[in-house]
Amino acid sequence: MKVNGTHYRTIWLRDKETIQIIDQRKLPHEFIVENLRSVDDFCIAIKDMHVRGAGLIGAAAGFGMYIAALNASQNSFDEDVFLAGEKLKATRPTAVNLEFAVERQLKAMFFFNDIEKKIDAAKKTAMEIADEDASFCKRIGEHGVKIIEEIYEKTGKTVNILTHCNAGWLAFVDYGTATAPIYAAHDKGIDVHVWVDETRPWNQGARLTAWELGQEGVPHTVIPDNVGGHLMQHGMVDMVITGTDRTTHTGDVANKIGTYLKALAAKDNNVPFYVALPSSTFDWGIKDGVKEIPIEQRSAEEVKYVYGLHDDSVKKVLITPKNSNAANYAFDVTPRHLITGLITERGVCAASEEAIKALYPEKE
Amino acid sequence: MKVNGTHYRTIWLRDKETIQIIDQRKLPHEFIVENLRSVDDFCIAIKDMHVRGAGLIGAAAGFGMYIAALNASQNSFDEDVFLAGEKLKATRPTAVNLEFAVERQLKAMFFFNDIEKKIDAAKKTAMEIADEDASFCKRIGEHGVKIIEEIYEKTGKTVNILTHCNAGWLAFVDYGTATAPIYAAHDKGIDVHVWVDETRPWNQGARLTAWELGQEGVPHTVIPDNVGGHLMQHGMVDMVITGTDRTTHTGDVANKIGTYLKALAAKDNNVPFYVALPSSTFDWGIKDGVKEIPIEQRSAEEVKYVYGLHDDSVKKVLITPKNSNAANYAFDVTPRHLITGLITERGVCAASEEAIKALYPEKE
Repeated sequence: MKVNGTHYRTIWLRDKETIQIIDQRKLPHEFIVENLRSVDDFCIAIKDMHVRGAGLIGAAAGFGMYIAALNASQNSFDEDVFLAGEKLKATRPTAVNLEFAVERQLKAMFFFNDIEKKIDAAKKTAMEIADEDASFCKRIGEHGVKIIEEIYEKTGKTVNILTHCNAGWLAFVDYGTATAPIYAAHDKGIDVHVWVDETRPWNQGARLTAWELGQEGVPHTVIPDNVGGHLMQHGMVDMVITGTDRTTHTGDVANKIGTYLKALAAKDNNVPFYVALPSSTFDWGIKDGVKEIPIEQRSAEEVKYVYGLHDDSVKKVLITPKNSNAANYAFDVTPRHLITGLITERGVCAASEEAIKALYPEKE
Repeated sequence: MKVNGTHYRTIWLRDKETIQIIDQRKLPHEFIVENLRSVDDFCIAIKDMHVRGAGLIGAAAGFGMYIAALNASQNSFDEDVFLAGEKLKATRPTAVNLEFAVERQLKAMFFFNDIEKKIDAAKKTAMEIADEDASFCKRIGEHGVKIIEEIYEKTGKTVNILTHCNAGWLAFVDYGTATAPIYAAHDKGIDVHVWVDETRPWNQGARLTAWELGQEGVPHTVIPDNVGGHLMQHGMVDMVITGTDRTTHTGDVANKIGTYLKALAAKDNNVPFYVALPSSTFDWGIKDGVKEIPIEQRSAEEVKYVYGLHDDSVKKVLITPKNSNAANYAFDVTPRHLITGLITERGVCAASEEAIKALYPEKE
């Protein structure tokens, strides 16, 4: 997507030894491109959220495994690469894409004996994971835009879409998931307006979604996370689209903390609630999202301090009393019965085991 | 309640011509006492939230009407005082306590012809409104603590209470409503722990509730507004208590934006959801809260900027892109069917017209 008119992806190979990313901690106030050259660079970038979002951390893990292969010792290549994978997987426990990318890389390298060939395979696979992510997101847009189009044709008015967190192109390699149908609608000349949930504590909505919608010229309004229910009670939301960090094959959705509250409000007000995801986000192993998906707890400091622009530089301010405790659960799980449908690269389906199985029969 | 060990109310008469308040915009980082000497001082203090909270803005309007009477012209006394009342009422449209206090003052002055006597009546009534608020809150604590006690006796474990916004003593003249049962439980030696919703955009929870609980030594943890649903899904909340800015006599509750989302989550997880209020917060005239209660919209700047401590002084940082729009709906309405009970100064009742009528038969 565009940054000041120039096309960017969120992660790319700069040269044989260097991967570049956009450091998302500083957006929207500063646009900084960062070089990653070691597995530790990747682990820090993922854990401290220089890069974040289901698809992007998957793609980052893919590139991280390539860098791991590149830097592995000749004598302990397999072990080095395996341990790098374990390190990468441990950075964020909730998102399943990390695991998916690491396993795919290990499998890709496994078939070769020659180290140079292993490295080539890892490079090729990293690029494949990134390209696939972008193309899946594009297709999610093509499927999802039909839902927006239908609402627009029925009402003839601006379609108001609420989204939580950032499942935009910044969360993937390009296009995004929740935003892909929105960008597609905007490109088709459909009047869309996006209610952007601020998404405390890290403000992915206020900082990232608002910024990328602004860059693409999509009308939007930032709202505190508390506001969505009120808007839905008053008919001001036509649909909700969010992303997901892990979706059980039964249809439960782990996504940024607070998603569950919006799903409850959507249900209570008959507002359609969609979740957009590439199939790399499915967890084919577990059934009960609320009980089984591990929920990451992050530092209390992310709650107690807020970053923002003051006198032309980004500063960090304390918003709570110094001695108050804070808790920082990063995700919650929305049970499938609150979800109208899943928008995948293969089409839209119900959030149920049967419907997901029908779309991905090979996963049986 | 206590500030660094000294007892304070939130508003008090300093001398004949001066009312003092705690400027709540600077808490928890700075404790500043402000003088109010004109009706305009009061209007600014209420509108810009130097004082806020249902009971406290009622008490402030009471004192404001006294200052209006004190400063009114001999020739146009009644008109001056009436217009001051209109000005005070217009500062915040959702809270009903403002209207209640202004009407009560007009009635109190009406019975006297002599201007000195009118002024005396206004002074006496202002003190009465404040004292009554404090004593009602104390009684709310006595009624509400029984609910906490019951949970404690049943489980034998720390009682985890979630609250949204600040319905603490800072929102009233003393004790608070939602916090009064908590303080009473803490005083009785019951183990309580409070989940404090940050309460964006103005951070009443992170700034004020956390601060006053800290001053009283009550264990608490600040959480982003997004977190409560997750905690309830996992059995980590025993009850919710919030305040209210206006409650219909049928039991619908207008309270700080986001309350509705927590009530939905409480319902979905069978967590008791209580609303604590003095009867001054009832609106005896309207029936349908969602349709009829006016919802204040405040400046978008309150969403786009966050205040906090940086380098020992309070600074304001921009968290959104400069050009993004933001919307700031200050309240939402929780329909009565989501509410377990109302904790009033006369006891606990269901959120229904019949139950409220039974507790306040004189309002028929």
